[in-house]
Amino acid sequence: MEMGIVVGRVTATRKDERLVGTKLLVTQPIGLDGVPLDSQPVITVDTVGAGIGEKVIFVKGSMASRAMQNKDAPVDAAIVGIIDSLE
Amino acid sequence: MEMGIVVGRVTATRKDERLVGTKLLVTQPIGLDGVPLDSQPVITVDTVGAGIGEKVIFVKGSMASRAMQNKDAPVDAAIVGIIDSLE
Amino acid sequence: MEMGIVVGRVTATRKDERLVGTKLLVTQPIGLDGVPLDSQPVITVDTVGAGIGEKVIFVKGSMASRAMQNKDAPVDAAIVGIIDSLE
Amino acid sequence: MEMGIVVGRVTATRKDERLVGTKLLVTQPIGLDGVPLDSQPVITVDTVGAGIGEKVIFVKGSMASRAMQNKDAPVDAAIVGIIDSLE
Amino acid sequence: MEMGIVVGRVTATRKDERLVGTKLLVTQPIGLDGVPLDSQPVITVDTVGAGIGEKVIFVKGSMASRAMQNKDAPVDAAIVGIIDSLE
Repeated sequence: MEMGIVVGRVTATRKDERLVGTKLLVTQPIGLDGVPLDSQPVITVDTVGAGIGEKVIFVKGSMASRAMQNKDAPVDAAIVGIIDSLE
Repeated sequence: MEMGIVVGRVTATRKDERLVGTKLLVTQPIGLDGVPLDSQPVITVDTVGAGIGEKVIFVKGSMASRAMQNKDAPVDAAIVGIIDSLE
Repeated sequence: MEMGIVVGRVTATRKDERLVGTKLLVTQPIGLDGVPLDSQPVITVDTVGAGIGEKVIFVKGSMASRAMQNKDAPVDAAIVGIIDSLE
Repeated sequence: MEMGIVVGRVTATRKDERLVGTKLLVTQPIGLDGVPLDSQPVITVDTVGAGIGEKVIFVKGSMASRAMQNKDAPVDAAIVGIIDSLE
Repeated sequence: MEMGIVVGRVTATRKDERLVGTKLLVTQPIGLDGVPLDSQPVITVDTVGAGIGEKVIFVKGSMASRAMQNKDAPVDAAIVGIIDSLE
C-alpha cells in the first residue's frame, strides 16, 4: 500500500455503471515526512469515509476491488485506511 | 485510476480477435492542473464514448478487462469515466 | 496497453516448458511521435506475427497470458496488435 | 520481490475491517548495498515478525494477499522474509 | 518479461513457509546492450537453474507464481529462462 493525502474530488457523470455512487478522491502520494511526492496523483475510491486533507493508506491494482461493495467494479485504487500516526 | 486526456486513436488491422470492434484511444496522463505529464502515453480501450480532447478516468491492469463487454479480452487499460470537474 | 517498436529477438534454450515454441521479441516503448522512449525494453511474446521494426501494441501484466494459446504460461507481456496508423 | 528496510509503523483506527489486527510497517526499498533508495516508501503488512531496522523481502501486487491469514484482505504489499545475508 | 543479470543470492531463515526451499536470486535489469540499468534490483525465484552472472528472462507480478511448483506461494518475480543470445 502507499501513503497519500487527499487533495481533491473528481466528478464524472458519464462513467461505468458500477462506479455510480462511488466517491472518487484524488490522492497524492506522500513520503515518510508527510510531504507530497513529485509523482502522479491517483484517483482512488474512498471506502472508509476519507475527506480532503486527510492522510490515508491506499491499495493499488486488482486488490483494490476487494475493498468495494460491488466486487465486480473496474477499479485499481482504493483508500482502505486513515492514518492516525506514523512512528 | 489515473486522469488523462485523449490525444489520439490507434488503428490496428492485425490484432487479437477479441480486440476487433474496440476503440483504442491514446491517453496521456495529466496532473491535478490538467496539464499533460511527461510520462508514457497509454493505449486505452474506450468503454464510455470518449473523444479526442476529453479528460478521462482510466483504469489499468487486470481490472481494466472488467470494463469490457468481452470479459476475456487481453487488455490492461480502459477508460471508465469522463471527468466533469475536479474540485 | 503500450506502443512499442520491435527491436530484437531473444533466444533461450533453457526456459519454462510452457514457453517452448513462443517467439520472444524485445520491444522498446515508443511515444506519440513513434520515437523510442528512454525506458526499459520489454520481452514480449508475439501473438500476431510481428517482425523486427514493426510498431506494435502490447499488453502487460496478467492479462498478457490471455493472449497465449497456453493460458497457463508464465508471461507478463504480449504483443496483441500491429499499429497501422496513429491519428 | 524487493529488498527493503523497515523504517516505521503506521497506525490507522479507521480502516477496512479485514485490516484489523494487521501490523502495517513502512518499508523503504534498498539497493544491493543495503542503502535506502530514493523511491517511494511502501506500506507493507508484516507476516513474519519483522521489526524496525530489519532488512526484509517484500512482495507486491495481488500475490501479497496470499501471505495474509485473511486471504480476502485488500492488501498489495507484504513482508514475506527477513534477510540474513546477501552474497 | 524483462532481461536481467543475476548478481547475488539472498538468504532468509525466517520467511513464509511456502518459500522454504526456493532459491532467491537478486537480478539486476539490463538493457539491450546487456549493461545493467540504473533501476531497482529484483528478488527473483529461480525456476530454471540460473547462476550468478547469467543473463536471464524474468516475469513479474501474479504470473510469476505460475512458474512455481507451489502455485500458492506469495511470489511476484521469477526467472523463467536463460538468455542464449539477443539478435
